[in-house]
Amino acid sequence: MAKDVHPPRGMRDFLPLEKTRRDQVLTTIRETYLGHGFQEIETPALEDLERLTSGQGGDNEKLAFRVMKRGAELESALASNNGEDNLADLGLRYDLTVPLTRYYATNRAKLPTVFKALQTGPVWRAERPQKGRYRQFVQCDIDIIGDASILAEIELLNASLDALTAIGLKDATIRVNHRVLLANLLEQLGVPEAGKGSAMITIDKLDKIAAEGVVAELAEKFDAGVAERAAAWLNAIAGDLPIPAELQEIFSAIEARFGAGRLRFDPTLVRGMGYYTGTIFEIEHPESGSSIGGGGRYDGMVGRWLGTDAPAVGISIGFERAVDLVEANVDNSKSLVLVLDSAAPVVIGNALNVQQQAIDAGYRVRLEQRPKKLNNLLDSMAEQGFGSFATIGEEFVNFADLSLRNIAN
Amino acid sequence: MAKDVHPPRGMRDFLPLEKTRRDQVLTTIRETYLGHGFQEIETPALEDLERLTSGQGGDNEKLAFRVMKRGAELESALASNNGEDNLADLGLRYDLTVPLTRYYATNRAKLPTVFKALQTGPVWRAERPQKGRYRQFVQCDIDIIGDASILAEIELLNASLDALTAIGLKDATIRVNHRVLLANLLEQLGVPEAGKGSAMITIDKLDKIAAEGVVAELAEKFDAGVAERAAAWLNAIAGDLPIPAELQEIFSAIEARFGAGRLRFDPTLVRGMGYYTGTIFEIEHPESGSSIGGGGRYDGMVGRWLGTDAPAVGISIGFERAVDLVEANVDNSKSLVLVLDSAAPVVIGNALNVQQQAIDAGYRVRLEQRPKKLNNLLDSMAEQGFGSFATIGEEFVNFADLSLRNIAN
Repeated sequence: MAKDVHPPRGMRDFLPLEKTRRDQVLTTIRETYLGHGFQEIETPALEDLERLTSGQGGDNEKLAFRVMKRGAELESALASNNGEDNLADLGLRYDLTVPLTRYYATNRAKLPTVFKALQTGPVWRAERPQKGRYRQFVQCDIDIIGDASILAEIELLNASLDALTAIGLKDATIRVNHRVLLANLLEQLGVPEAGKGSAMITIDKLDKIAAEGVVAELAEKFDAGVAERAAAWLNAIAGDLPIPAELQEIFSAIEARFGAGRLRFDPTLVRGMGYYTGTIFEIEHPESGSSIGGGGRYDGMVGRWLGTDAPAVGISIGFERAVDLVEANVDNSKSLVLVLDSAAPVVIGNALNVQQQAIDAGYRVRLEQRPKKLNNLLDSMAEQGFGSFATIGEEFVNFADLSLRNIAN
Repeated sequence: MAKDVHPPRGMRDFLPLEKTRRDQVLTTIRETYLGHGFQEIETPALEDLERLTSGQGGDNEKLAFRVMKRGAELESALASNNGEDNLADLGLRYDLTVPLTRYYATNRAKLPTVFKALQTGPVWRAERPQKGRYRQFVQCDIDIIGDASILAEIELLNASLDALTAIGLKDATIRVNHRVLLANLLEQLGVPEAGKGSAMITIDKLDKIAAEGVVAELAEKFDAGVAERAAAWLNAIAGDLPIPAELQEIFSAIEARFGAGRLRFDPTLVRGMGYYTGTIFEIEHPESGSSIGGGGRYDGMVGRWLGTDAPAVGISIGFERAVDLVEANVDNSKSLVLVLDSAAPVVIGNALNVQQQAIDAGYRVRLEQRPKKLNNLLDSMAEQGFGSFATIGEEFVNFADLSLRNIAN
C-alpha cells in the first residue's frame, strides 16, 4: 500500500520545469547584485535558539521552528521538567537579517570596512499555511554595513531596481519613507509619546481601512484633536507631494538613472519592524496585491552582537512573490532526446559519443531506450521541456550529421 | 559587550571568496549533469519525522535533528509525558535519497517514465563535530528511477566522471562492485546465512585492518575454514582481476569514452547501506584519504512509499570533500572598484552611470567613497578579489575612456 507521501504541511516539492524557472530568476537576481559589487555569503540554516529569540526578529520570533536538544542534554532537560523552552537549543532561521548581523559580528575582522552583503536562501516560519504563504520560502537580501551615508541607500535601490528589471519586473516601484518623518508627523498630530507605536500601527493600515478608518481608529485610541489633525494631514497628502529634504538626494540619483516613477515618496509607509531607524522601503508591483519586498536602515541592530554600533541598511526581495509575477520562459531550443534503437553495446557506445558531441555544442542531451510507443515518449519529453530528438543505431553518425527532428508540443 | 557570536557547533559561515568558489564548483557539477539530461528538483529541508526514521536511512536516522511540535500539539505531547519521541513531528533531512524516493511517490504522475533526477543541497546530521566533518553539508545526487537496465549505471558513471573532470578532478576514479558478487563470495567462503551481514562488515574494513586483520576477524566470528578460504581469496585478488560478466558492459562503455583506469573493479567493496541490491560505487581521489562519494542500485526502496516497486540507481558526490580538492581560482580580471572623490550628488551620479556602463561590459563594479588612506582600501579590495580601480570626480568620463589601474595583491 502506498503511504501518505506528501511533503510536510506548508512546504513544497518543485517539479523540474518549475525548479528551472526558479533557478533562472534567482540566478539573474544574484548576478545583478554581484555585478553591483555585492559579495555573496552563506550562513547556516540553524542558529542558536537564544539568538533567534532575543528580540531582533519581531513577531517572526514566535514562528521559529525549534530543534530539540540531543543525547544527554535532552535527557537532562526532560528530567528537569522545566517546560518546553528548555528542550530546544537550535532554531531554523526565520529571516536572513538576524543571521547577517551575527555573521558580521563573527567575521568582521576578515570583511572590508564597508561590507556589502548578498545572501539568498530559504527561511522557515511555522505560520498557519494558507494560499501563497509557505513554511519554507526563499529570500534575497542585500545589505550594506558600515556606511552611514545616503550613498548606501542609493546603491541598494539602484541595484534592486536593476535586479527587478532584469527578471522582467520593470513595472516594479519602491515606496520610500523615513522614520524621522514619521516621528515628526506623530509629534505634529499630538500623539502622546506612549501611544506612538500604536498610532503607527493604525497609520500602517491605510491601505486596508482607508482614510476614514484611520481617522476613526485614531479618535478611538487618542482624542478628537489627534483625529482631526490626522484627517487634515491625510487630505493634504492625497495629491502630489514634494520630496522631503531627507530623501531628496536618493530621489535625484535614482530618477537620473531610471526616470521618474520607479520611486514614490509615501509619508504613510510605516513597516512593522521596530528596529528601523531611518529610511524604509517597500517594493510593489501593479500585478501583485501585496508588497514583493522591502527594507530600511537599522543602525542599532548590528551593535547588539558586536558591542559597538555599526550603521546598516538593507533591502529584501520576497522571492516567492516575485517569481510568481515572472512569466515562465522554457527554452527548449538546445535540448535533445537521443532514442537508442536497441540496448546493444555498440548502440550505447554510439549514443554516449553523440551525446558528448552535442553537449560540447551546448545541448542538454537525454538518452532514452526506444519504447513500444515512441510518440508517448516524445509527448512526455516535450512536456519536460525537450525540443528535438534523433535516433541512434548501430551505425555511428557524428552529431553534426545527425538529423534532429522537432518534438511537437 | 560583544556576546558569543559563533555559528552553531559544527556549522559554518562562508566568507565571500569561499562562497564564490563553492558556487563555481557546484554550478559546474549541476551544469554538467543538466547537460546529460538530468532534471533538477528540489524538496523541502524538512520531512515528516516518521518518514525519516522508518528504516530507510540506516545509521543516519539516529543523527536526524528533530523539530519540536508547536502550539496545542506540543502542549498535549508535553502533558501526555510519553517521552521525547512524541515531542517532535518533523526532522531535517540527513540525505537526499530518502526525500527523493518520497518525492517520486508524491509526483510520479507528473514525471517521465524514466526519471533522471538531479538534486543538490544541504543535509544535516547531529554528528560529533570533528575536523572535516560538519553538521550541515552539501550533497550532489543524481538518480535514475524506472530503468532496470545497465544503461542507467552507464549514464550515472559517465555523467559523474564528466562532472568530476569538469571541476578539475580528472584523477578521480570510481571503484565498482555488485552485491550479487558479494553474495556469491560469501557463499563460497562458507559463511552461514545469519552471519553474512557481519562478514560484509569485516570485509569492508580491509582498507583499515589489511588482509591479515580481515582473516583474523573472520576466524574469530566464524571458523578456521572460512578464514582459510578468505585468505586464499584475498591472495587471489591481489593482482589484476578479470571484469566479471555482471560489470563487463559498464566497463566497456566507460573505457571507450575515458580510457582504462577511471573505473576499477573492487571485489572487496561493500558500502554500508543495507538497501543496495545490485551495483555499488565509491568515488576516490589520490589526494583524499577517504571516499569523495558513492552510490549504487537500490531497487527495493522506492516501493516502500509507492506501493509498487520501481528500479532505482543513484550516485552522490560528497561536495565538501570534492570542493576541498579543487584549487581556488579567483578571477579578478573583470572587477573594478570605483573610488568616489567626494559624496557630492554629481559625483554619485557620475559613479552610477559609469558603474552601469562597466556592468554592461561584464564587470563586477563596487563603489567606494575615498577614505583617508586610499592604499588601505585598495589592499582590502584586492583581498576581496577585486583587480582594478579608477577614480570618479565631478567631470563625467565614459567607462570606455576611464583609465583602470591594477590593484596589486
